[in-house]
Amino acid sequence: MAKLVECVPNFSEGINKKIIESIVDEVRNAENVKLLDYSSDKDHNRTVVTFVAAPEDAKKAAFQLIKRASELIDMRTQKGAHPRMGATDVVPFIPIQDVTTEECVLMAKELAKKVGEELNIPVYLYEDAATCKSRTNLANIRKGQYEGFFEKIKLPEWKPDFGPCEMNEKSGCTVIGARFPLVAYNVNLGTDNMEIATAIAKKVRFIGGGLRFVKAMGVKLSERNIVQISMNLVNYEKTAVYRAHEMVKMEAQRYGVAVVGSEVIGLVPMKALIDCAEYYLQIENFDISQILEKKLSE
Amino acid sequence: MAKLVECVPNFSEGINKKIIESIVDEVRNAENVKLLDYSSDKDHNRTVVTFVAAPEDAKKAAFQLIKRASELIDMRTQKGAHPRMGATDVVPFIPIQDVTTEECVLMAKELAKKVGEELNIPVYLYEDAATCKSRTNLANIRKGQYEGFFEKIKLPEWKPDFGPCEMNEKSGCTVIGARFPLVAYNVNLGTDNMEIATAIAKKVRFIGGGLRFVKAMGVKLSERNIVQISMNLVNYEKTAVYRAHEMVKMEAQRYGVAVVGSEVIGLVPMKALIDCAEYYLQIENFDISQILEKKLSE
Repeated sequence: MAKLVECVPNFSEGINKKIIESIVDEVRNAENVKLLDYSSDKDHNRTVVTFVAAPEDAKKAAFQLIKRASELIDMRTQKGAHPRMGATDVVPFIPIQDVTTEECVLMAKELAKKVGEELNIPVYLYEDAATCKSRTNLANIRKGQYEGFFEKIKLPEWKPDFGPCEMNEKSGCTVIGARFPLVAYNVNLGTDNMEIATAIAKKVRFIGGGLRFVKAMGVKLSERNIVQISMNLVNYEKTAVYRAHEMVKMEAQRYGVAVVGSEVIGLVPMKALIDCAEYYLQIENFDISQILEKKLSE
Repeated sequence: MAKLVECVPNFSEGINKKIIESIVDEVRNAENVKLLDYSSDKDHNRTVVTFVAAPEDAKKAAFQLIKRASELIDMRTQKGAHPRMGATDVVPFIPIQDVTTEECVLMAKELAKKVGEELNIPVYLYEDAATCKSRTNLANIRKGQYEGFFEKIKLPEWKPDFGPCEMNEKSGCTVIGARFPLVAYNVNLGTDNMEIATAIAKKVRFIGGGLRFVKAMGVKLSERNIVQISMNLVNYEKTAVYRAHEMVKMEAQRYGVAVVGSEVIGLVPMKALIDCAEYYLQIENFDISQILEKKLSE
């Protein structure tokens, strides 16, 4: 099977269509790269691009995109609701097929070196590529944002991992890294009580003593007059979707509240759902290559 | 997406490796055809081949295989435990991707015509391609087997759908048709009581008043000292795997017997398991194109 890596660069322009298309063109025109999706948010003034390719091709395309963004976006005048620190704000590599997280970490480091040296942009490594614990979390690195980084970058503990040790005024700085595929999974509850939603979200998520790879918050669905536990499952192999589902259901029982539905947002790796079928059907010794489509792609 | 049809020809030779390989070579050497699997059983004296291709390529490869089998297998001397009526006994076309059952029926008819005219073999159409109700079921057509067909073929109600109206002494006759992908799904019970297994199997299956597309029987797993409900799900879209699972569980409760596991035998279409994840997780509005691997193959 061919090695496949997903790359989801976020860049700090969500309004000017000419600039957005010109940057996305770098992915469209890259060789052996498949653009899966891109979406812009005007309020956030931010665009998220999703593409897949073999490791070398993905790295090349990501570099071209960062280069183009550094030419077209000027952080000195950029404003938006979403926290950001650079023209290309963050670039994660995600293992999809026949690739390990370690290989994605290596890709992140190689790209970071090239961006630092050739584009003169300070780069921080994050998540699985982080060089120390305080740089694992993106929000932690980005604290202070573009404006605050002119000072923050001078602190010894915030010396960039690659590139110059002072801010690139036009392009800011960039975060590059590797992470596991994320599953956005929301569970709907048969109540309009936000206090219940918030209490359940706190119990289910990691920081509240819940499941290791779950981030969660309560959300109101005003149109349907119900509440929702909105979750990010950041490692569906270790904290499977069914475990998050059953944990929400179990906590909701305390309030006599039922799960009335759920939703998967965006793309989801096949295995994340197959694992749930395996659990609920109690299948023994299942091998993913028994899936006809998997066999066909071999 | 490319049109894909699966074809699972069964031919009446499971011992002579030279003959088997020579017949399978017709699939290996066919253009744009992917051989997925083949397995022979010596007691049954029978080989089952599985391949996939676009409709035209699948039809061509199936014809070549039938032709080769008619040259190499002589039914006048063939013996085996498995019921059979021809050198190539049965050839089903199965819709896999972007193909309807109706298209597979058409393929079956075109192939049957060519086999009848060019190879002088009588052909019966079965399952979704059947021309009357009594020919839907393969076992019903095959009753009497090769030996009995010299008389059976003369009966007006058993006039072949294509080809000559008398037996081909060397090759027998062949059944060609179209059917939905089959899921072989077994549920293990926490008891060694075969009476319970048989009773549950009878309740769950169609002919016993159970689910429309379920065939089932009780089986003893001597090594583990438990019993099993062994099922063929002949339309997983209309009678989903989770419904068969829950039906077995529900009937077993009458005896205070628990489901202790299950197994999927051989290949299974991705959607058959994704449907189960959707049911148990209560996912609303899921679209199969949200599966990353599906999106990648588009």
